[in-house]
Amino acid sequence: MVVAQSGGPSMVINESLVGAVMAARGSSRIGKILGARHGIVGILGDDYVDLRKPSAKKLEAIARTPSSALGSCRRKPSAEDCKAIFESFRRLNVGYFFYIGGNDSADAARIVAEEAEKAGYPLVVYHIPKTIDNDLRSCDHTPGYGSAARFVASAIRGDDLDNRALGGVKIDIVMGRDAGFLTAASALARVREDDGPHLIYLPEVPFSEAKFVRDVKAAMKRFGRCVCAISEGIRGRDGVPIGAKLGTGETDSHGNVQMSGTGALGDSLARLLKEKAKIKRVRADTFGYLQRSFPGIVSETDRTEARAAGAAAVAAALAGRLTKGTIAIVRGRSRKYKVSYAPVPIERAAKHTRSLPREYIAQNGHDVTAAFVEYARPLVGKLPECEIL
Amino acid sequence: MVVAQSGGPSMVINESLVGAVMAARGSSRIGKILGARHGIVGILGDDYVDLRKPSAKKLEAIARTPSSALGSCRRKPSAEDCKAIFESFRRLNVGYFFYIGGNDSADAARIVAEEAEKAGYPLVVYHIPKTIDNDLRSCDHTPGYGSAARFVASAIRGDDLDNRALGGVKIDIVMGRDAGFLTAASALARVREDDGPHLIYLPEVPFSEAKFVRDVKAAMKRFGRCVCAISEGIRGRDGVPIGAKLGTGETDSHGNVQMSGTGALGDSLARLLKEKAKIKRVRADTFGYLQRSFPGIVSETDRTEARAAGAAAVAAALAGRLTKGTIAIVRGRSRKYKVSYAPVPIERAAKHTRSLPREYIAQNGHDVTAAFVEYARPLVGKLPECEIL
Repeated sequence: MVVAQSGGPSMVINESLVGAVMAARGSSRIGKILGARHGIVGILGDDYVDLRKPSAKKLEAIARTPSSALGSCRRKPSAEDCKAIFESFRRLNVGYFFYIGGNDSADAARIVAEEAEKAGYPLVVYHIPKTIDNDLRSCDHTPGYGSAARFVASAIRGDDLDNRALGGVKIDIVMGRDAGFLTAASALARVREDDGPHLIYLPEVPFSEAKFVRDVKAAMKRFGRCVCAISEGIRGRDGVPIGAKLGTGETDSHGNVQMSGTGALGDSLARLLKEKAKIKRVRADTFGYLQRSFPGIVSETDRTEARAAGAAAVAAALAGRLTKGTIAIVRGRSRKYKVSYAPVPIERAAKHTRSLPREYIAQNGHDVTAAFVEYARPLVGKLPECEIL
Repeated sequence: MVVAQSGGPSMVINESLVGAVMAARGSSRIGKILGARHGIVGILGDDYVDLRKPSAKKLEAIARTPSSALGSCRRKPSAEDCKAIFESFRRLNVGYFFYIGGNDSADAARIVAEEAEKAGYPLVVYHIPKTIDNDLRSCDHTPGYGSAARFVASAIRGDDLDNRALGGVKIDIVMGRDAGFLTAASALARVREDDGPHLIYLPEVPFSEAKFVRDVKAAMKRFGRCVCAISEGIRGRDGVPIGAKLGTGETDSHGNVQMSGTGALGDSLARLLKEKAKIKRVRADTFGYLQRSFPGIVSETDRTEARAAGAAAVAAALAGRLTKGTIAIVRGRSRKYKVSYAPVPIERAAKHTRSLPREYIAQNGHDVTAAFVEYARPLVGKLPECEIL
């Protein structure tokens, strides 16, 4: 088997890797366990790691380490690429291919699977879900989301206390290019009536500068200060992300425009408030890559599920009901939080994403509902308690 | 007594507050224990909290909470302000005033103390040291630094793993307007030979764009990737901070230009590298206010010392040797890490700051020395371990 990681890293993507490797080690039907470095780029360059070698202790340490231990890539395989992949696989006698990533990675795995069928190369392909954006259609929630959401909620809780001390407006830009799940998680920071975030802006609600200025003025009047959690993916009525217009225009091979790794959106909104709302102290932070990589900020539920999803993919591949699948994370309907892992067709995760459902978005267009908080709380876990005078 | 907090909040400034309050509660010579909200602004507005009221349990919870529980301000008291302060103090029968903050807060406390002498108002004034910048001349290191340094080192360790996965150049902008101590702490993230940060730029070394581009190119050649930790306070040969030139021009009443709360410096350096070094993937994050407010990211040494410094100030004020003092944190010379708390004249902490000493800056101008790492390690504590494949 070959396993690889693709797309943006997360806090728990290595849990899925280790889950898959441990499951494979436990089966007599798997021979070599190879990790390709930097996703399909490693396959194309014959850059493999022997994953039978590391001790269980080392694998556990890898599992607890943020980012993608095998390295990552953002590459959509061409028909040419696929030919080269099968040559490599043939040479190494590869029958199973596991690809851990988000919707673009699922789509890349789907392409490999379909090209394998066309080429008559016998290959079982499984996508293992991972994305901090929580936007896979196949999952109630995705491994990686709970931990990133925990970072965001914790950061907002601390930042809200900072804003209490010095006042003014604080803008915090949160990751999530198309879906507002991660920005919505900022609401978990609230305990008291006047806790921030006071305003939450999601990509799912068309962003209006005039409304934003009005909202901030109203919050300043009510709370004497204002903390805003704003998605990097907010867009106007034209549907074009505002951050993309301000950014570098750089795109990856899946056509995604760069939005993270720049403070342009936050700075532009801060300028707007200073000019239009005449507020003196306005600060903007862009949480950036720390949301997916800060060591130790992990949701234990997320960690457990990421491991289980990796193991489930190997079990499903060996069971052989689907030749191209992904693992759906299904949430039980009982009050007590419980999930199961179901193999489903890979198309369910590939390419198209989901947005934050309407019932999670508040009527006023700048908040989330209690239903969202109920949905997200068990994924994130208990946050550090904070007390005020 | 009146106690108040001033300047930028930190992870452990409430430990100092609680340390002072608990010490005062333990003395029969202190009557009312009043906390002024938002520093001297609260004194001027008669906005006090009765700090005898909260239970010990609540105070412990406050101590563990980031930011300044009493609120903060950035205000230099005028002679007029001081008159109003003494009127308030006379009415409330205040004989002791404790001000927790950095060099500007120490200077504010010094002004209050000197004006009190002039006005013949009997007042013992103690400054309690706090600054994540670690730039007080009176201390080996300041409460707040260890925890912020822990955030920076952890963030860089995670971000370095992220950069390993996806490559390119990552720029991380770190707080510290005049002193490079916090940026230097990024070096604690390193374990392996090729771990980032690969380049460290400090305010103490004149920044040259041409050298920066050369350094990054060389690091890309050597490591195939590059993580840069850059102080928000870097300045060219003219001594003017580059971030201040790019920023909003906003200043506080101590004359400090706004540098945090904007991504402008990182974005500008990223553009420079794309243009001049022709590197495709360049990303910039500005760590921002999370460095001083992220709940749970605390150095235990820092926490303990912040509490002790608060208690030491009250003890020194009651002992009555100095009428205007600050607490110096003195490090023992033995191998085993140990500190003591000494009352010294307030002028030692006020106004003027210290820079990162020359022996902590590497000859090449873009790194720190082993001596710095030895200095900083015990202040920050052990970081979460990370493993790579």
